[in-house]
Amino acid sequence: MKYTLRMQNLRPSAVVRARGRIYVRAPGSKAQEIAKALTKVFGISSVSPANQTTSDLNDVYQTALEIAKNILPQESTFAVRCHRVGIHPYNSQDVCRNVGEKILENFKIRRLRVNLTHPDVTITAEIRDKEAYVYAESLPGQGGFPLGTQAKTVCLLSGGIDSPVACWLTMKRGSPTVPIYVDNTPYTDERTTLRAVETAKKLQDWSAGHMNKIYIVPNGENIRTIQEKAPARFACLLCKRLMYQIAERIAETEKAFGIVTGEAIGEQASQTMHNLYAIDEAATLFPIHRPLLGFDKLETEAIAKKIGTFEISIRKAKGCSAAPSMPATQARLSAVKAAETNLDMTAMVESALLKTHTLNLSKQEDDV
Amino acid sequence: MKYTLRMQNLRPSAVVRARGRIYVRAPGSKAQEIAKALTKVFGISSVSPANQTTSDLNDVYQTALEIAKNILPQESTFAVRCHRVGIHPYNSQDVCRNVGEKILENFKIRRLRVNLTHPDVTITAEIRDKEAYVYAESLPGQGGFPLGTQAKTVCLLSGGIDSPVACWLTMKRGSPTVPIYVDNTPYTDERTTLRAVETAKKLQDWSAGHMNKIYIVPNGENIRTIQEKAPARFACLLCKRLMYQIAERIAETEKAFGIVTGEAIGEQASQTMHNLYAIDEAATLFPIHRPLLGFDKLETEAIAKKIGTFEISIRKAKGCSAAPSMPATQARLSAVKAAETNLDMTAMVESALLKTHTLNLSKQEDDV
Repeated sequence: MKYTLRMQNLRPSAVVRARGRIYVRAPGSKAQEIAKALTKVFGISSVSPANQTTSDLNDVYQTALEIAKNILPQESTFAVRCHRVGIHPYNSQDVCRNVGEKILENFKIRRLRVNLTHPDVTITAEIRDKEAYVYAESLPGQGGFPLGTQAKTVCLLSGGIDSPVACWLTMKRGSPTVPIYVDNTPYTDERTTLRAVETAKKLQDWSAGHMNKIYIVPNGENIRTIQEKAPARFACLLCKRLMYQIAERIAETEKAFGIVTGEAIGEQASQTMHNLYAIDEAATLFPIHRPLLGFDKLETEAIAKKIGTFEISIRKAKGCSAAPSMPATQARLSAVKAAETNLDMTAMVESALLKTHTLNLSKQEDDV
Repeated sequence: MKYTLRMQNLRPSAVVRARGRIYVRAPGSKAQEIAKALTKVFGISSVSPANQTTSDLNDVYQTALEIAKNILPQESTFAVRCHRVGIHPYNSQDVCRNVGEKILENFKIRRLRVNLTHPDVTITAEIRDKEAYVYAESLPGQGGFPLGTQAKTVCLLSGGIDSPVACWLTMKRGSPTVPIYVDNTPYTDERTTLRAVETAKKLQDWSAGHMNKIYIVPNGENIRTIQEKAPARFACLLCKRLMYQIAERIAETEKAFGIVTGEAIGEQASQTMHNLYAIDEAATLFPIHRPLLGFDKLETEAIAKKIGTFEISIRKAKGCSAAPSMPATQARLSAVKAAETNLDMTAMVESALLKTHTLNLSKQEDDV
């Protein structure tokens, strides 16, 4: 949370952990901005910009009235809720009833009404020992777990729509992930590379400092070898098997615990259930994690739009020209492995890794 | 579609495929019931109970007026849309404008208004060559792919909330899946078994005849061996590794292409990124597919509620009493494998498979 706020030049005066809550203290003028920034921090289920006061009932009334004054329009309906932890000379129902009455009294001219089931506005008083927090707004967070609470992964980022979403979901569940872009130039071009790099940069907004580089793996020569020596219908499958093995080697270097991909059942020819079986076998050192397995394209796109990668992923670029027009959709593992005997996969992995470099994501776009 | 309808004693007079559409013809009295049943068939994005007529404009008007009569309440707003394929003496805009005018004229007394951006009701005329279909309602389907368009999988069904959802998502993407329940009695009890069997039966509602049995694998003796011979903190990890290997053997028998589990990153001690690495290694023959990797518990529960398995999964049952109070959350693979050398995993897999039987899911509950 602190890192995410600092990156946006938001400097709260304090961040305090308590049971089930984290309090971020800041001047009221910055509350909305800070709250909004925190909705991008994984592990937070909601953020409520609140006015702080003491647990003295009069203070609670006063604070609630101030909020009500700003937030309750003419003829609106409202409800008052109270969460209370600690010992107080009143109970939660007292607070709700009395705050509600005081609001009705003070703003008679607005003709407000109480509606406990479907209020336009809910004012909540959260009273914890000597403190009270009054708020009328809760911004939904992303849920998940704080980034860094799970072991690291590497993620194959293609420049397409799906892989950044897979990467984001993995991060959401607490795992910092290191992006790897396998660069198939000249079968693709620099626009595809740029898409991958730019989506990684966009994912940085969610990474709280955990994502600061991307591996770029030049793979064009290997694709040429596959084109020359293997049946065209297996090209994508052999390329994927190769990519898994490259990713495994980088995972070892990075001390990561798994490889994340954007594959979804049946989404592409290489992702049929048959073909996932035929490619998964190439990864022997690490699990391949595919968070999008059960996603429909529209569901993936909805997340891509939310996290800001969609617009980047649909920019014009050269699709991989090594992809065959008639790819195998039900490849037999034995046939794929037979085709692979014509290729020196180990040497191909080595040669790609020798040419691999990392790009510092904190650099400016212009430096790419 | 035909199977799903037949199972509910709904017999349409015809099911006709056309480009981008499947027409199900039935008497109007059955339309709603049939439409609702079809929303449970994977691969369908929406179902619109429509009135059929000819593409003659007068017929389209008449049909639209009939629908409007039943569906447009007093003072409501509506819009008319038209999709047209084929050659006709009018264009789509003619249809929209004229149908709209006729509705306004005919139901003047209702004081209807046209609202093209946020109408209360949208009446759609879909005109294809000589036929026209007029409807005012589209029920959202599940999306995904028709079941059976992807290769088969097996799914480890635990009786808990998550695994039936993982199973459902896999089915949604077109893969028929065979449920496997590993029965740890006496560490669990028959109520857990019943939960697994009942969730499988519930999944049958979505299976269009593709799910008709569940494997029951008695595993209690193996758990006792693990309890006796391995460190307590590894109990769940070793049990999972064993389950994967049992599932692999059943996948071979079933000619399946992958193993589906309900694991989500960090959801349980055995599902941390570290531990997924330590258990995944045990499966060498098949990919382990985990569609819930990136799901939060609340997201999984929402699907479980929608598909009808939630209520079954939360029934009271004995939690596995072999689960240690202090499980390893960051187990080293080497340590787990060292612990495993005290166990004869191959023999344990064999002994469990020898006791395995399948349960016919079409039997009545009482027979279980």
